[in-house]
Amino acid sequence: MAATIKDIAQKTGLGLATISSYLNGGNVREKNRVKIEEAIRELHFEINETARGLKTNTTRTIGVVIPELNSVFCAKVIGRIEDTLRKHGYALMICDCRTDKVREREAVEFLMRKRVDGLINMPVDGKGRHLEKFRRTGKPVVLIDREINGLGCDSVCADNREAMKEAVKLLVENGHRGIGMVAGTQDVLTAQERLMGYEEACSENGIPLRESYIYSGDCTIESGVLGLETLVRNNPEMTAVVVGNYNMSVGVMIGMNELGLSVPEELSVIGFDNLQFARACRPRLTILDQPTGEIADHAARIMLERLGKTDCAVNAQPYKVRLKTALIPGSSVKKL
Amino acid sequence: MAATIKDIAQKTGLGLATISSYLNGGNVREKNRVKIEEAIRELHFEINETARGLKTNTTRTIGVVIPELNSVFCAKVIGRIEDTLRKHGYALMICDCRTDKVREREAVEFLMRKRVDGLINMPVDGKGRHLEKFRRTGKPVVLIDREINGLGCDSVCADNREAMKEAVKLLVENGHRGIGMVAGTQDVLTAQERLMGYEEACSENGIPLRESYIYSGDCTIESGVLGLETLVRNNPEMTAVVVGNYNMSVGVMIGMNELGLSVPEELSVIGFDNLQFARACRPRLTILDQPTGEIADHAARIMLERLGKTDCAVNAQPYKVRLKTALIPGSSVKKL
Repeated sequence: MAATIKDIAQKTGLGLATISSYLNGGNVREKNRVKIEEAIRELHFEINETARGLKTNTTRTIGVVIPELNSVFCAKVIGRIEDTLRKHGYALMICDCRTDKVREREAVEFLMRKRVDGLINMPVDGKGRHLEKFRRTGKPVVLIDREINGLGCDSVCADNREAMKEAVKLLVENGHRGIGMVAGTQDVLTAQERLMGYEEACSENGIPLRESYIYSGDCTIESGVLGLETLVRNNPEMTAVVVGNYNMSVGVMIGMNELGLSVPEELSVIGFDNLQFARACRPRLTILDQPTGEIADHAARIMLERLGKTDCAVNAQPYKVRLKTALIPGSSVKKL
Repeated sequence: MAATIKDIAQKTGLGLATISSYLNGGNVREKNRVKIEEAIRELHFEINETARGLKTNTTRTIGVVIPELNSVFCAKVIGRIEDTLRKHGYALMICDCRTDKVREREAVEFLMRKRVDGLINMPVDGKGRHLEKFRRTGKPVVLIDREINGLGCDSVCADNREAMKEAVKLLVENGHRGIGMVAGTQDVLTAQERLMGYEEACSENGIPLRESYIYSGDCTIESGVLGLETLVRNNPEMTAVVVGNYNMSVGVMIGMNELGLSVPEELSVIGFDNLQFARACRPRLTILDQPTGEIADHAARIMLERLGKTDCAVNAQPYKVRLKTALIPGSSVKKL
């Protein structure tokens, strides 16, 4: 027979209210805390979180909807968020929507039925229609790697425009003017911003924009391969390529290998993300590295704040956190 | 006011038992199913899964404990398991234990308190002590990429010994005899089996085993780098290296780059896993590729069977599924 809260009351001589307060994370005198914890250990008491969920209308779980668990960026960020939230007693329920808007909406509805206390989302639907119903519950939504205008959600992203401007600037400083871009899905703000950074840097440096220099991919490895092949075929005079996300950077390196092009002699490349991948490339790839640890820490902190689990005052306005990327030099940029 | 099961009964004229049976996945006549689904739509009825959990003593969630979410193998397998289980109404709660036995035990206890219906684990503790308490609940445990002798759990892994034998055999066929191995953590069965495969293949081919040819890493990228550096320093006559997991394969390629060694001229390499990484390597890496999709599908199927959610008879004996890896040729093996 499992021990109940009444058994703890009997054992400690404390009132049910005190014990309940302890179990729900409230303030309890030090002396009583020690007594309760002793009794919990001795009685092998375990909280029935399901029962508690019904009473407090919380489940102490946070839903996570991401495009692809099998993405180093997502896995790193979510792994670290999980770490922090677990320390506060929260579990994550993670749904992978395979970069599909219909699946994304289904995942959010699924998590609503699971009565999650909050949602962390890296949205595929750039308009955020899949979030409307959840938003009406009044529960917090924190977006990572995306911002959706007009939705009023908190968001944590890298400063994508500045990142891409910096990459183009480095190429220009090395004498490049024929610079192509393998860009991501253009209905996603992050990808738009990266493209915008590319365009701004070109115009600031007096480089005319050419449509044939921009390939719009869908952020997959295969679209990186195809993007590189297309840009090379259509622009024989091109000397450098910048890439709009990690998967497409892997794809561009595959494309370089499979076309037998040498880096940086025949084409200079600046990739997006993943230091370890950059180190394994030959020659080492120059990359824009996102601050995944910081992104995760901000997202977790904001979620805990919204759940009322931190001491800081709750910000009435949505947070729009923007974090700086780092340009990490490799040997993939040629001095012309 | 949210609609209840009674509202559905009133609307459809059906009994509560029929509707309850429908909601819990039982058999209901086609005619009644249509009626119930119409009523659910019209009344915007939503199941309160928390309340249901308390009544049925199930939560329709499966706990997952893995060493590292930020591992392509884990992310691929878990992403696909999530897909299948979600179709059956199950959510995954995923805990990443950072390859730490203490955190692993804490994660299992955390998920027990969350009353998960079953557990999927890629154990760090090769003895499985962290699972003992959970096993006593009688709920199913499915191990992936690991087997623990004597624990009586279902398990799904690649045939690691055969995989590594095949890699060494390919090197021998190409004239190599000085073959080193960067092996994984030796308290994990999978890593032991891969090392065993290496040793068997050596002795079958009359190659004497030398201690200095085996580096015991800990399955991280950094230990791959260090492993390669150590083997190269201690064995100048070595002509080839096989690697015991994906992260260490990335590390070995980083090490080759950072030591300025050319593949395969100075050293032939056979890596473990990840076709896309192999394609991005220059020259393309020859690899042993694990059947991640099949591993995920077997694990999900076994879990559903144990939960009583499939039609097949429940197997009384634990499953020990072993799946064949593929040796995918690249250009990283030199013919001597």
